[in-house]
Amino acid sequence: MALIGKLVICGVGLIGGSFALALRGKGEVGHVVGMGRTRAALERARALGAIDEIATDWATALEGADFVLLATPVGQIDEVMTAMAPHLQTQTIVSDVGSTKGDVIAAAYQRLDAHLSRVVPAHPIAGAEKSGVEAASAALFHGKRTVLTPLPENDAAAVERVRAAWQVCGAAVVDMSPQDHDRVFAAVSHLPHLLAFGLVHDLAGRANAELLFSHAASGFRDFTRIAGSHPEMWRDICLANRQALLGELDQYLGELALIRSLLLSGNSERLEQLFKEARHARIAWGEAAVGTDAQARTGDRLRSAR
Amino acid sequence: MALIGKLVICGVGLIGGSFALALRGKGEVGHVVGMGRTRAALERARALGAIDEIATDWATALEGADFVLLATPVGQIDEVMTAMAPHLQTQTIVSDVGSTKGDVIAAAYQRLDAHLSRVVPAHPIAGAEKSGVEAASAALFHGKRTVLTPLPENDAAAVERVRAAWQVCGAAVVDMSPQDHDRVFAAVSHLPHLLAFGLVHDLAGRANAELLFSHAASGFRDFTRIAGSHPEMWRDICLANRQALLGELDQYLGELALIRSLLLSGNSERLEQLFKEARHARIAWGEAAVGTDAQARTGDRLRSAR
Repeated sequence: MALIGKLVICGVGLIGGSFALALRGKGEVGHVVGMGRTRAALERARALGAIDEIATDWATALEGADFVLLATPVGQIDEVMTAMAPHLQTQTIVSDVGSTKGDVIAAAYQRLDAHLSRVVPAHPIAGAEKSGVEAASAALFHGKRTVLTPLPENDAAAVERVRAAWQVCGAAVVDMSPQDHDRVFAAVSHLPHLLAFGLVHDLAGRANAELLFSHAASGFRDFTRIAGSHPEMWRDICLANRQALLGELDQYLGELALIRSLLLSGNSERLEQLFKEARHARIAWGEAAVGTDAQARTGDRLRSAR
Repeated sequence: MALIGKLVICGVGLIGGSFALALRGKGEVGHVVGMGRTRAALERARALGAIDEIATDWATALEGADFVLLATPVGQIDEVMTAMAPHLQTQTIVSDVGSTKGDVIAAAYQRLDAHLSRVVPAHPIAGAEKSGVEAASAALFHGKRTVLTPLPENDAAAVERVRAAWQVCGAAVVDMSPQDHDRVFAAVSHLPHLLAFGLVHDLAGRANAELLFSHAASGFRDFTRIAGSHPEMWRDICLANRQALLGELDQYLGELALIRSLLLSGNSERLEQLFKEARHARIAWGEAAVGTDAQARTGDRLRSAR
């Protein structure tokens, strides 16, 4: 018997579509219903085999549903939860894929307060600058992490079902508190996106933008790859997590102030030392695989790097 | 007959080694002499076939030399030019591979003032986070650009010889003024390196660095790849070009101040607009090939993106 009988995906884009394709590929889902804002996207999702059926109202979609995955941009989560709440049946597990957890959980407490035992927030770490169901793939989560941030109200069985679904997708599942999650991802994901968007925006607005871009090479290419990410999704992430993100941005501005002062005073020795420490940490991290056991190995290398 | 009879490479690392290997591969060099600070590195360069002979003094190295390539970190250029000047023969062309041109040219005017007709500054754009002759390859410059910043004093024939050598290496050669060169590369290369070093240095110094790095994924990997670059080389570049670099850093700090204010005020619309403009420019640039005719095509796309 499949892990999930009836699955509802709200927002069948890169992540939602890949989740459905991965479960299908393993025979672990019976029937997949898609919901979303734009009919054309849902038609493409059906044509690509990610969903079996398109629903236009929550009552139909949620009838007999085992699992609902909310895969819209995080800015729509509150509205979606409000709309689905009256039609939610007792057995249905609700999970999400939001890159921020504090705001999703706040919405759940407000909109799904009678259903908290089965609302299990999650965040699959599958960064991709592409978006849309056309980019979806059953292999997207292979060897990647998914973070669960379970609520104190959760049924243990619901948490284990969500964990199992992501494991079927090939992800390594780890648990964190929502607060830790939002701080960690502000630092290692949300801030770098902001910095890359900012650099490209800055250069593109210059009078000599053409000359500048024509001489940009592979370092620039990799540094700015994430500036090709989905603007609405990243607007929502940055605003949803803005408290932690502003903290990280200010810390980084402090780092840049230090670097600026070293440049201004021509402090060759300290500048080289700073670059050396960064290089050492970056190489240590790069050598540790980004996967199941990366944490332990990164730890070892970081310790030896100090 | 080979383009270069006797070639002297000072600093046989990634760039110097690759230049020698590329010319050798095409049969366009007769004899290659290596000079450098560390004997062991020169021995490896000889073992790898990048050089034929190791010289320990400039008099021997420069005897009958047709072409000297200065491929040390830019911070050593002044010292190297001072040491070689008394032994330089009339026919010898001198070029370099420095990522900054203002400082190299200032050193040339001061140390090689009697030889300026044959000092042709150059900068091959072959970004690689690796360093050392072990990473050298005859194909390193294939499809990449090399920028020449000729001096008013240059003999036309010397400029054409340097151009031809880089073309033999597979590079597309373009000419720029040294001032334009240094401003352009401060923006698209030196600043991104500084920002990536800064982010990794900041995170590596945190009490929870292990937790942070363990959750970093592909966006972080690409954004910080250049933080694995050679610390001494980048210290020299940043200090040599610090005037232009400080200008770029300050402009970028202005961009971050704008982003910070949009975050703080929750200005969803303008934040999304900024991300959209960045994404549009980044995708337009990414679609234009980084190569010979990238400039024209990037221009077209940037114009249409506005």
